[in-house]
Amino acid sequence: MTTNASSTQDRLRGVFSPVLTPFNRDLSPSTQHFIKHCSWLIRQGVGLSVFGTNSEANSLSIGEKRGLLDALLAAGIPTDRLMPGTGCCALSDTIELTRHAVTSGCAGVLMLPPFYYKGVSDDGLFRSFSSVIDAVADPRLRIYLYHIPPVAQVSISMKLIERLLKAYPSTIAGIKDSSGDWSNTEAMLREFQPAGFDVFAGSEAFLLATLRAGGAGCITATGNVNPGPIVALYQHWQDADADQRQLALNKTRGVFQKLPMIAAMKAAIAWQADDSAWSVLRPPLVELDTAQYQQLQIDLQACGFTMPEASELAVAD
Amino acid sequence: MTTNASSTQDRLRGVFSPVLTPFNRDLSPSTQHFIKHCSWLIRQGVGLSVFGTNSEANSLSIGEKRGLLDALLAAGIPTDRLMPGTGCCALSDTIELTRHAVTSGCAGVLMLPPFYYKGVSDDGLFRSFSSVIDAVADPRLRIYLYHIPPVAQVSISMKLIERLLKAYPSTIAGIKDSSGDWSNTEAMLREFQPAGFDVFAGSEAFLLATLRAGGAGCITATGNVNPGPIVALYQHWQDADADQRQLALNKTRGVFQKLPMIAAMKAAIAWQADDSAWSVLRPPLVELDTAQYQQLQIDLQACGFTMPEASELAVAD
Repeated sequence: MTTNASSTQDRLRGVFSPVLTPFNRDLSPSTQHFIKHCSWLIRQGVGLSVFGTNSEANSLSIGEKRGLLDALLAAGIPTDRLMPGTGCCALSDTIELTRHAVTSGCAGVLMLPPFYYKGVSDDGLFRSFSSVIDAVADPRLRIYLYHIPPVAQVSISMKLIERLLKAYPSTIAGIKDSSGDWSNTEAMLREFQPAGFDVFAGSEAFLLATLRAGGAGCITATGNVNPGPIVALYQHWQDADADQRQLALNKTRGVFQKLPMIAAMKAAIAWQADDSAWSVLRPPLVELDTAQYQQLQIDLQACGFTMPEASELAVAD
Repeated sequence: MTTNASSTQDRLRGVFSPVLTPFNRDLSPSTQHFIKHCSWLIRQGVGLSVFGTNSEANSLSIGEKRGLLDALLAAGIPTDRLMPGTGCCALSDTIELTRHAVTSGCAGVLMLPPFYYKGVSDDGLFRSFSSVIDAVADPRLRIYLYHIPPVAQVSISMKLIERLLKAYPSTIAGIKDSSGDWSNTEAMLREFQPAGFDVFAGSEAFLLATLRAGGAGCITATGNVNPGPIVALYQHWQDADADQRQLALNKTRGVFQKLPMIAAMKAAIAWQADDSAWSVLRPPLVELDTAQYQQLQIDLQACGFTMPEASELAVAD
């Protein structure tokens, strides 16, 4: 078995969130809201997978992503908690964004496979990742593969991981498994985690199971809105009440999951922060309608949901 | 029924091809090969849907696409035969590329819906297209919608077309239907073609049927390699031998279609032009293996396939 050459010290662990991207009314990214939200998440103990699926990252241009990342760094967000998504359809875009993240000092990058062409071969995907690694050519690069077949429709197979780990043991650092298929996460934990390939569950629904199987944590959308209890389970997973904590997390997650999730999370923040700017989504996604918004409030209140210090997420007009 | 306000004169008709994008060995686009190929296609009577699916367009950055388009214009390629693909995942990218195409004088643009997020609503897609149209804000803009559910996994429904036509009758000019489902093409021809919404079949396999039903032509990958006979059917579709011509086209298409098609078309050009640079694809796509390449040559020879003046597609080292 190939052993990952990264030192333990380098390795990211814990709870990360694909950070929601706030927009202005004119649909441009709201840098001010973004910095406030990232700062708040860091204070809650959540790492920043900016530019993930739930960040509407694929609705942003490379220039917009570079600009947002630069704004975070200028605001003093710690690079050792940054794992930006950098995988795009176009090889040249992935290289540009990955290089920018690495030279900016980000601890890792979360990399989607190129996702426009369907039914592509593992040979083609291997070439995609290896072309990026060879072009960036920076020993600091740590890639977390991003497996999300329900959305990307292009998968990262066990065979591909094995091949990448063999070719680039110090660069291929781990995976976010958003397949929603626990048997897949389990197989990765069994086959690759012992070699230092860090497996993150794609949602907190699998956080306890992942930690019990030796995994690194989770990268979860609802970290944007429910960070405290998720981080608490990560910290207390060996305590007697861990299963109860997991059940409570699942209940809150269920409220968001039964609605269009990105819109629901933004609506929850708009409500808690009392800042309606938070409810804007970039097309093709749309905000909740009034009935959905009211149902969300009722269901969240029934869970005892609150966001601590939510007023800090608001931006004065 | 809403009537499309474009004058007949503006309207594109005939055979277009999603132009293959040639690459150098270092995977950068080969501008020289690209200009030669586009010039050759124009001489064969084929219009240029540069940056389509078969162009590996979603493996190119916006900067690379702008650069290639500028190079075509500088080389004197006629803008009235240019229909570049400009639909990207990111709204901001689609706006930038569409604006560039329109201000460059391109006769039309072929627009994919944003394709990363799946299961999006018609409301969201309507907002995507309308945000682009409102941002570009140029009366010269003519949008051909690009419906290719097998790859994009996001569809353009009849209801969405109706809504877009009603809101933007002089901008929404037509569609490329690459669903592969003739009943869908037929429904569009029946419902929207009479109002001046030009329906292009997504492959020459449906060219004769489309023309018989009043459609505008086809936008087809194999136009890259078999342009003469496809254009001849477009010109002679009312002749007695039209069905025979269609059958011959289908036979040649079948040879390419049973292989990974982009790789097969590039291999055919590399062979006919005697220029191996043509065989390079950008990851995640890969070139044919030796057995596939040999089979392609045998099958094409059995069809009597040749590319006229193919040596003009070669670039000296």
